[in-house]
Amino acid sequence: MSGNGFGHLFRFTTWGESHGAAIGAVVDGVPPRLKLTEADIQPWLDRRRPGQSRFTTQRQEKDRVEILSGTFEGLTTGTPVSLLIRNEDQRSRDYGEIRDKYRPGHADIAYDMKYGIRDYRGGGRSSARETACRVAAGAVARKILGDGVRIRGSLVRMGADRIDPAAFDDAEIDGNPFFCADAAAAARWEDLLGRVRKAGSSVGAVVEVRASGVPPGLGAPAYDRLDADLAKAMMGINAVKGVEIGDGFAAAALSGEANADEIRMENGRPRFLSNHAGGVLGGISTGQDLVVRFAVKPTSSILTPRRTITRSGEETEIRTRGRHDPCVGIRAVPVGEAMMACVLADHLLRHRGIDSARGG
Amino acid sequence: MSGNGFGHLFRFTTWGESHGAAIGAVVDGVPPRLKLTEADIQPWLDRRRPGQSRFTTQRQEKDRVEILSGTFEGLTTGTPVSLLIRNEDQRSRDYGEIRDKYRPGHADIAYDMKYGIRDYRGGGRSSARETACRVAAGAVARKILGDGVRIRGSLVRMGADRIDPAAFDDAEIDGNPFFCADAAAAARWEDLLGRVRKAGSSVGAVVEVRASGVPPGLGAPAYDRLDADLAKAMMGINAVKGVEIGDGFAAAALSGEANADEIRMENGRPRFLSNHAGGVLGGISTGQDLVVRFAVKPTSSILTPRRTITRSGEETEIRTRGRHDPCVGIRAVPVGEAMMACVLADHLLRHRGIDSARGG
Amino acid sequence: MSGNGFGHLFRFTTWGESHGAAIGAVVDGVPPRLKLTEADIQPWLDRRRPGQSRFTTQRQEKDRVEILSGTFEGLTTGTPVSLLIRNEDQRSRDYGEIRDKYRPGHADIAYDMKYGIRDYRGGGRSSARETACRVAAGAVARKILGDGVRIRGSLVRMGADRIDPAAFDDAEIDGNPFFCADAAAAARWEDLLGRVRKAGSSVGAVVEVRASGVPPGLGAPAYDRLDADLAKAMMGINAVKGVEIGDGFAAAALSGEANADEIRMENGRPRFLSNHAGGVLGGISTGQDLVVRFAVKPTSSILTPRRTITRSGEETEIRTRGRHDPCVGIRAVPVGEAMMACVLADHLLRHRGIDSARGG
Amino acid sequence: MSGNGFGHLFRFTTWGESHGAAIGAVVDGVPPRLKLTEADIQPWLDRRRPGQSRFTTQRQEKDRVEILSGTFEGLTTGTPVSLLIRNEDQRSRDYGEIRDKYRPGHADIAYDMKYGIRDYRGGGRSSARETACRVAAGAVARKILGDGVRIRGSLVRMGADRIDPAAFDDAEIDGNPFFCADAAAAARWEDLLGRVRKAGSSVGAVVEVRASGVPPGLGAPAYDRLDADLAKAMMGINAVKGVEIGDGFAAAALSGEANADEIRMENGRPRFLSNHAGGVLGGISTGQDLVVRFAVKPTSSILTPRRTITRSGEETEIRTRGRHDPCVGIRAVPVGEAMMACVLADHLLRHRGIDSARGG
Repeated sequence: MSGNGFGHLFRFTTWGESHGAAIGAVVDGVPPRLKLTEADIQPWLDRRRPGQSRFTTQRQEKDRVEILSGTFEGLTTGTPVSLLIRNEDQRSRDYGEIRDKYRPGHADIAYDMKYGIRDYRGGGRSSARETACRVAAGAVARKILGDGVRIRGSLVRMGADRIDPAAFDDAEIDGNPFFCADAAAAARWEDLLGRVRKAGSSVGAVVEVRASGVPPGLGAPAYDRLDADLAKAMMGINAVKGVEIGDGFAAAALSGEANADEIRMENGRPRFLSNHAGGVLGGISTGQDLVVRFAVKPTSSILTPRRTITRSGEETEIRTRGRHDPCVGIRAVPVGEAMMACVLADHLLRHRGIDSARGG
Repeated sequence: MSGNGFGHLFRFTTWGESHGAAIGAVVDGVPPRLKLTEADIQPWLDRRRPGQSRFTTQRQEKDRVEILSGTFEGLTTGTPVSLLIRNEDQRSRDYGEIRDKYRPGHADIAYDMKYGIRDYRGGGRSSARETACRVAAGAVARKILGDGVRIRGSLVRMGADRIDPAAFDDAEIDGNPFFCADAAAAARWEDLLGRVRKAGSSVGAVVEVRASGVPPGLGAPAYDRLDADLAKAMMGINAVKGVEIGDGFAAAALSGEANADEIRMENGRPRFLSNHAGGVLGGISTGQDLVVRFAVKPTSSILTPRRTITRSGEETEIRTRGRHDPCVGIRAVPVGEAMMACVLADHLLRHRGIDSARGG
Repeated sequence: MSGNGFGHLFRFTTWGESHGAAIGAVVDGVPPRLKLTEADIQPWLDRRRPGQSRFTTQRQEKDRVEILSGTFEGLTTGTPVSLLIRNEDQRSRDYGEIRDKYRPGHADIAYDMKYGIRDYRGGGRSSARETACRVAAGAVARKILGDGVRIRGSLVRMGADRIDPAAFDDAEIDGNPFFCADAAAAARWEDLLGRVRKAGSSVGAVVEVRASGVPPGLGAPAYDRLDADLAKAMMGINAVKGVEIGDGFAAAALSGEANADEIRMENGRPRFLSNHAGGVLGGISTGQDLVVRFAVKPTSSILTPRRTITRSGEETEIRTRGRHDPCVGIRAVPVGEAMMACVLADHLLRHRGIDSARGG
Repeated sequence: MSGNGFGHLFRFTTWGESHGAAIGAVVDGVPPRLKLTEADIQPWLDRRRPGQSRFTTQRQEKDRVEILSGTFEGLTTGTPVSLLIRNEDQRSRDYGEIRDKYRPGHADIAYDMKYGIRDYRGGGRSSARETACRVAAGAVARKILGDGVRIRGSLVRMGADRIDPAAFDDAEIDGNPFFCADAAAAARWEDLLGRVRKAGSSVGAVVEVRASGVPPGLGAPAYDRLDADLAKAMMGINAVKGVEIGDGFAAAALSGEANADEIRMENGRPRFLSNHAGGVLGGISTGQDLVVRFAVKPTSSILTPRRTITRSGEETEIRTRGRHDPCVGIRAVPVGEAMMACVLADHLLRHRGIDSARGG
């Protein structure tokens, strides 16, 4: 297997399975002399942690992060920051029928086709648990970005039910178990997800991540575009099936007139009158808010029997019992925020390295 | 500027501006002894070539590709394949007002913010002309994939008008100037785009690319997922604002039951009863058809005046005259196909290098 | 800081400082289903471990390796192999004068110039302790190479005293504390190094690493040459100042006639009559023994006072007391072996990925 | 084949065979707004050009470089700089016996083992002609480094005959056909090489490259050390068999006392009293002169018959007629300079990106 690292100058590599002793991340490309302690990382992990409401898996993990290297007296030394999170709740359980049966909609069959391995215990590297490492790495990235860059994710749709954009209230996001910025929608979702959970079913969602204070000029116009790297980052999160920037798929229906973000001057600086572009033009940030959305499919772990086959090729049915999230999109919110932080930190260092070095 | 290369083992690097002498690509990571001549590449370039109907820019470019290195007696030698395409139609023109004014919705302002350079002649590396190099590199990638993998793109939506999936006819795609698989839709679009063009306006689109015959097992479960690399590839095409795999954003509205692709056996091999996943589970190909869609925004080059500023910060208006595509999504179809070929070739080599080497 | 990873397909990333809680390596690009347990790694670490004779530092470290991820039931799963080695002997000591004074010949001044950090405790990432991680990663690489590839390092020179090549006896290498293949030289070195140690001085050395059973065809002719990657690998070991392949610098004095390794047939395969090339031609392995040598400078930790400056720019003198190796070249032997294993494993995977895929 | 690119942020990719239409390099990672025209590159190519004295191959190549992209009105735009050099002297010749016979000491047998291809015309990518591209890329790198960094190579040994270091005169280097800084040695070499040439033989050499004005702090302490990257760069030049930094292999014979570069203050800055380290400590530049030497083996193209085999496995003999360099080390001098420039430019951008960003 390859591809367990992400980024170019700011680069992290993650390891660990959900049912091993621990998981972790090694973050390379950290500038020296940044303030960093566990207390800078833990709050972000706490937001992603399972078991906090009845709407996420009841697996109990404290997700305590330990910094094993890369800091001295509360400052980064520039050396790799090694982050460790122990797995605590690996309760012995009866894997029963999932041991030999593939789950329709789950990665297990593809994984087995590729590696010849059936890690029935928890999905191996496909486990959502791996995303805790992304959140930890994202916390380091935020230190590079500094306080001027603010990254905020929320759930804007659960199943077919969307929030009302006019009701979007940033202060509401942490006031409900869904990271929902629309109080009325949150109330509806509580009901919706309660029913889904009781039915042993699951539902998809759409997450939106916004970053404000992003300096203009991050990115590049060919392949390492800021939007392309964000697309890779978000599509690389478990269960994500779509990514869009700014107006995204809706832009396909627009005319050129409607799509053009007109420009005026304000306090001596360009000001865009709208943000259809979502903060990126030609792969480069414009200084407007960066707006990314991604679609999360419903988890494949459901109680209703589905037709499937066994490893040995016999046709059968499967029901998945166990501790699962009825809407995995909820816990994808902090993960999306973290991935955006990592992409921005990487592009900030790249920009500083090459393009800020412009001649006279 | 960095990031002018794409891929890991199969890796190409492109260069050139739309108004220089030539553009080109250097393809590294090509296995030796594959059949390759210009005749294997030219047909794909011809599909992307401008000036073929009244619905694409009237810029006249033959887009003749020359292989400068990497082949001997019709076979690849394994050395880098250097591909050259001369720019022919660089007519001296009056850049007039676009010389100093930013075009709303265009990359020129972001480019200038980053590089301190105003290449008013044609967008520098942001020019759609660069995508000819991607198509050429894609033709080399197809030789690695072999005839068993078939990649086919089409336009599935123009503006707000979608094709009827039930009317999808592969044979229709090359029968109209829109790469449209639905004859009725193509007829409607002819009318629609004619009006858009006459109005000096533009319209967005959605492109779908399908690959059949993809071997199972390509990709990896963490960051270099097949879907994540496809997302980067497609979002990295000019004017693309969204990418989705399989059901994509529609998956957010599904229940786990509806989203599960059930599995049966057929001729001793697993057969999926549906393809909501779009051929990828956990970042790894399943052997089903790979289905990717991307949204293309309308071009910013329109005749209607828009408010903007000049380089020196004065408020003004702009109208863009010149030879432009009223629907840039059309010519993005062969580009999307090429990028899919490149991603698949790269993952095929990676899979062969690491994971096909499995022990006992 | 960047650059804490090594390799392309087989890629490991190391972390940790000599005076933190632990050090470690994350190995990515491991094929699935290889046999791997701690018992496959520990013996190589034991060879590098300090405190085994009076000729190496008396720091007491057990260097027990723990596999935190990437294996299941004794087989690799393909997922990243995370290796942890705890630091045990971090005795509180009086850093005294080295706290503020730079050691002539030591990296501390360059490190401080770059990072603005003075990690007087143990050299930060410049510490020789980091090389334990390379040895651990090398043990994983050996599993990829299989038993057919045999890698063996030895000390061929201590100070000005060289071994007699005619007396080279592989079986002798583990019979003395110097990894010396010439029993007579080992006896002389025992005397020599005893005197150096008592004088509080230090001495340089030359290490030779040989690999037999290397398949022909590893490497590439341009930049990622097998010899170039070996040069980077060996020059990247602490205190190394020179690297050579085959005849190395002596080749400069040869005529073309003398340097040519003539070729005959033997059992239907090419056989070279000599090995001036050291197993590499044009950056590609030939199937002959791979022969690499590297020069290790004497450690800068010596008792004789040397003129230096303090961090604040005052002129002064320094003597380094403490637990140090009088000849750091000795412990570089297992490190050189490990780096060769990693380079070979990486090139084996790359070759398999791209070039073994040659067309008909 | 892979590995035709070099560098991380400043990264160039080369292509082309000696007997094709042209060779070239694409340079990515170039900061915008640097002055660059062909006149900045051509002089460096002229120094490497063959046919300038009777001591280099009589192949006649003008080596005229063309910039195909990346500049506008004499300034870099930041976009990739594509450099083209046409092959002119591809005279039709009788390859005679080298068509089917391997040349002992030449890469042709290894190349064929790997790729299954026999490019008897000129060595494919193993040809020394490829190094012209490195020289061109190096000229771009010098623009990034600026005039403050001065890089100067010379031949310090031909065969067994070394220069007298005390007689080293920088002004002498361009006054003889050997890039020799010692006039007396140059006179001896004229005689020596005349005899070698007449005998149809060849001889090895040692090249030294020095850089002054290198800022302290370039490099990193683990794998991407400045010295490790220089070792890869130099060992990657055709026919190179050894690389050393500072005292190099001689350091193995030194005591710690002799090897320590003592430090004093001068004008408020550290001054080293000697330079055994060659300007690098712990992989990081110290601000002292960077001193690298590499050994070049004698070319395998000689008139004396050598025993070899044919492609089909028959034992035979071979003599190589044709236009060859009796001492390929001479033309390696500008190549070594160029590679040092590329390594320094890359590390300068990396340092600026990550480590210069240090917190408060």
